[in-house]
Order: sequence, then C-alpha cells, then structure tokens
Amino acid sequence: MGEFDLIKRYFSRPARRAVLGVGDDCALLAPTPGMQLAVSSDMLVEGRHFLSTVSPVLLGHKALAVNLSDLAACGAEPRAFMLSLALPRADEAWLAGFSQGLWALADTFGCELIGGDTTQGPLNISITVIGDVPTGQALLRSGAQVGDDIYVSGTLGDARVALEVFRGNMSVSESVFLSTRSRMEQPTPRIDLGVALRGLATSAADISDGFLGDLGHILQASQVGADIETALALPLLACASHLHLPQARQLELILSGGDDYELVFTAPAQCRAQVVAAGLASHTPITRIGAVREGQGVQLRDAAGQPMAHQFKSFDHFA
Amino acid sequence: MGEFDLIKRYFSRPARRAVLGVGDDCALLAPTPGMQLAVSSDMLVEGRHFLSTVSPVLLGHKALAVNLSDLAACGAEPRAFMLSLALPRADEAWLAGFSQGLWALADTFGCELIGGDTTQGPLNISITVIGDVPTGQALLRSGAQVGDDIYVSGTLGDARVALEVFRGNMSVSESVFLSTRSRMEQPTPRIDLGVALRGLATSAADISDGFLGDLGHILQASQVGADIETALALPLLACASHLHLPQARQLELILSGGDDYELVFTAPAQCRAQVVAAGLASHTPITRIGAVREGQGVQLRDAAGQPMAHQFKSFDHFA
Repeated sequence: MGEFDLIKRYFSRPARRAVLGVGDDCALLAPTPGMQLAVSSDMLVEGRHFLSTVSPVLLGHKALAVNLSDLAACGAEPRAFMLSLALPRADEAWLAGFSQGLWALADTFGCELIGGDTTQGPLNISITVIGDVPTGQALLRSGAQVGDDIYVSGTLGDARVALEVFRGNMSVSESVFLSTRSRMEQPTPRIDLGVALRGLATSAADISDGFLGDLGHILQASQVGADIETALALPLLACASHLHLPQARQLELILSGGDDYELVFTAPAQCRAQVVAAGLASHTPITRIGAVREGQGVQLRDAAGQPMAHQFKSFDHFA
Repeated sequence: MGEFDLIKRYFSRPARRAVLGVGDDCALLAPTPGMQLAVSSDMLVEGRHFLSTVSPVLLGHKALAVNLSDLAACGAEPRAFMLSLALPRADEAWLAGFSQGLWALADTFGCELIGGDTTQGPLNISITVIGDVPTGQALLRSGAQVGDDIYVSGTLGDARVALEVFRGNMSVSESVFLSTRSRMEQPTPRIDLGVALRGLATSAADISDGFLGDLGHILQASQVGADIETALALPLLACASHLHLPQARQLELILSGGDDYELVFTAPAQCRAQVVAAGLASHTPITRIGAVREGQGVQLRDAAGQPMAHQFKSFDHFA
C-alpha cells in the first residue's frame, strides 16, 4: 500500500463544514462571523506519551483527545484538525484501529479531519486542532484574581496509578487496573465544561503534566499564588479506597500524577452557584480545592489549615 | 535546560498579528473579513526529508519553507504557524541554529509562530501553517481545463543532483555541488507567484515529490491528461551545462527529481501575456512546458512532437 492509498483508505472523508478537506495542497476554512479561532498542537511519541502495548483504537482516541483538551481549556468548540503521522511501516491492522478510534472521537465532537501528512519514520503522531470561540470569550491562563476559588474537573491521579502498574512499581486488583488504565488510555476532553465556563471562569488550563505544574502555569501567567486544601483534594483519587497508600503518596498521585486531561480553573467566590450549574449543565463533576492568594507558588494546607511541606514536581520532557 | 525554558528561550516572541501567541493552551487568531483560511501540515524526519549533515540553520529554514510552499500553491499569504518538535535531547547549539533559520524565513513572510509542542524523542519536525486567501480565490488542483497551458516556476532537478552526490551516485565540481546543495537545503517558497496567479491559474500544486507526481495530482483531480514537451523542459535543469549526462538522465532528474518546491500550474492559452506579467511581478522565472488534453496521464513528446516512452516515478514514502 502506497502513501496516497493509505491516506485515501484511512484518512479521507468528504469535507462537511470545511470548504475544502483532505487532498489538495491546503485545506480551506471559512471563518464564522463573531468567532475567533483557537489553535493548539500536541505531538505524541511512543514510550513518552503512550506505551507500545496500547491498542491502536485507544491510541487514535487519545491522540485527538489530548488536543481537544487544550481547546476545552480555552472554552473553544472543536472545528477541524490536521494529522501528521510518521510510521515505521504501513501496517494495515494498526491503521484500521488507529483511524477507527480517531474518527469515533472526531465524530463525537463534530471535529473534521481536513489535512495532514504521512511519512516513514519512528512512530510519531502530531495533531493540530482548530476550534471556534466567541470573540473575547476565550478562557486564558492569565486572568486568575486574588480571592478566586480554584476548581478541578473529574478525578486526578488515576491515570498515574495505571502507569505505575505498567512500570512494575505498584500492584492493584484487576478491576482497579482496568478502570485506571481506561483513565490513562481514554481521557475525556472536557469540551462541554469549557464552553459552560465562558464568561464565568477567570482562568483555565488543562492538566496534562500534573495538577501542580499546570496550576503553576495559571499562577505564573496571572502573577498570583494559591492555597490548596489537601482535605478537599484527597477524594479526587477515585481508586484510593481500593488501595492501601499513605496519604502523602495519594496526594503525590493527585497533585503531580500527570496525564489526567482534566481542567483546572478559577472563578470568583461569589459565583459558586453558577460554577455548580456549569458542572451540572456539562455533566462534569467539579471539585473546589483551594483559593487564589497574593504572592506566588502553591501552598498546601492540611485539614486544620496549617501549611504543609511538599516537593512534588510536574513532568518536564527535558528535565 | 527544561522544556519550558527551551520554549521561552528559542521559540517565544510577543504576538503581533495574532490575538494570543505561544504560552497558553491555545493560540487565538482573529479572522480577516472576506478571507478564508488555508491550512497545511508537513512533517520532516531525519534521513527521509533531510540528512543528518544539514546545518540546523538551513534545516530551520527548510522545515518552514516546505510548509509555506503549500500555501503558495493555493495562492494564500502566510499568517501564522505551529511548530511541534521531537528532539533526542535539548542541544542548545542545535536549537539556536534551528530557531535562527526558522525566524529568518518567518520574518521574510510575516508568518508568526503562535504555538506548538516540544517533547523528547527521535528528531521530528512537524509544522502546520495557516494562511489567508480571499474567499473563492484559492488555487485548487481540480480546475485544469483541456487546452490550458502547463507551467513550472524556477528550475527542476537541481536539488536531486545534490542528493545523488550525497548518496555517492554522482560526482560534480565544487561549485555545482554548492549551488545544487543550496537548492536542496534552502528552497524558496513561491508565495509571491501564488498570489500573482489568483484569478489567472486554473489549477496549481507545489512540486515536492517530483514534477510528474505532482502534475499527476492536478490531472487526477481535474480528470484530464497532459502533453509535456521535453524540449521545453530540458533547460529547467540549471546545472545541466556543467554535467555530462545523457538527455534521458537529465529528463529523469527534471521530471521526477523531487524536493524542488516549485509550483506547477495551468492557465488558459489566451492568458500567456498575463502569466508572463505574473512572473515578472513576482520576480519568479516561469517556463511553459506543455498543455492539458483530454484523457488521463502524462504523455512526453520529443522535439518533433512524437510520443516518448517513460517510466519515471514520483516519490512515495511507503512504496
């Protein structure tokens, strides 16, 4: 199978919303009046972002999901994406599975594949997503205000538990492994929540490198600090009741686990009812776990409100 | 040097045209009224698209140039780009050179870096470019009409000569090597020509996999065939006078050499004067080398107009 057959068989469908899709030198998009375009890219490399054991269907899902998660963090709605793929060889079983997982998620969010590139090389999946957000309403990292509440969506740390099991560092029951593995391999982009938070959240980011690292981006961009109440954070590790881990280890998984693809966001304290409503409207669990304060950095506090020491780090590809 | 320092030091500059550039979950672009967006992606892998011996400065140039070439083929003007980079390690000398070449070309065309991703992995450069083209004026592959002239910009085959020298299959003088090597390593995206051809060319494509292959895409999309006059094509190999190659070998280099990043386009025969004017206005050499006919495929013709047999192939990453 040649390069162009491969594209035709697995990665071409007629354009619906786009003016022109796969098959020319460029794809063409007609902007929607009143909307800005949100653009984000994520590159996935075997051994770094996924294990060689992952099913191609789940990998197709995840490769797009981690990109859509960035659109969610901006409050943008998915519109189109470009897929560049380096493959060691044209493996039809792999391509069939990968494209199946990709299309399924793309269809869920009405996000069209409009172009890309394929080449021979070490496995590398590079996606650029393009979304729409009403002019001026994008959620940025830079808007957090002193006194705002800090929230996260969903659960944190479960994906990391699966990774530690794969690495041989932890041992869990079959059912815990299956549920945490699905958190690692099938993240759910929080698009609906991002849209519901437009005009409400003062800042947002997606949690890919670990909660503390990604909250840190918000704090740096907003030039503020944060207090995190560990008693509110501890329930976020969904599998905790099935494990026998010290609280410090649970906290580490929650706060610096990584690969969660949840949203961390801030909103004014007087808007708590509206935040709850946004969670309900988007069918997304939301937990308030702290507050923005003056200064810089994150201060963890115990149940009595006392400062706690910590040395958790977020993921860095070159550290 | 960590991931975020690396991005900050080499790949961040304040956004000028974009609403929001590098540093948030998404970049934000405000569409220009009356314009459509042209989007294209190219992925470059070491050993396939460039040799490990290439200077990082030239590689930075080429990685963006091959992407801009796709915008040129659509008649679009560059606006912004996303850069995703997998690197074996954070090599500062390499990053300094690569980013220097990248910025220089980006500045030439006013194309802003607005986002991307960096990760550890086998060297892979994945770029997505976004351009502007007036609504309805994009040059497509599908518009070639029977009777149209077929043109190419610049010269063809010289880049392939350099590749054959690197591979040890050809031997040339130092000066020929330098000039052909610069054609291979520093392609010039034909943006100005693409813009000048709006409303004039009936179809266009950029020549990356070899002239016959890329013309083939136009013919297939337009459901037509082509006659190519080899006597008109032979002068396109700029270094030919310095080599002692049989005509058949010269033709092979010209017609299926690859890596040329010139434009092939069609225009009505009655518009020859306007095509010449478009070439002059864009300071781009243009050569007419054939005509569109009914049927399918490419027929080469000799100086007497007689059909010639040929078996040249274009590049396919998985063939």
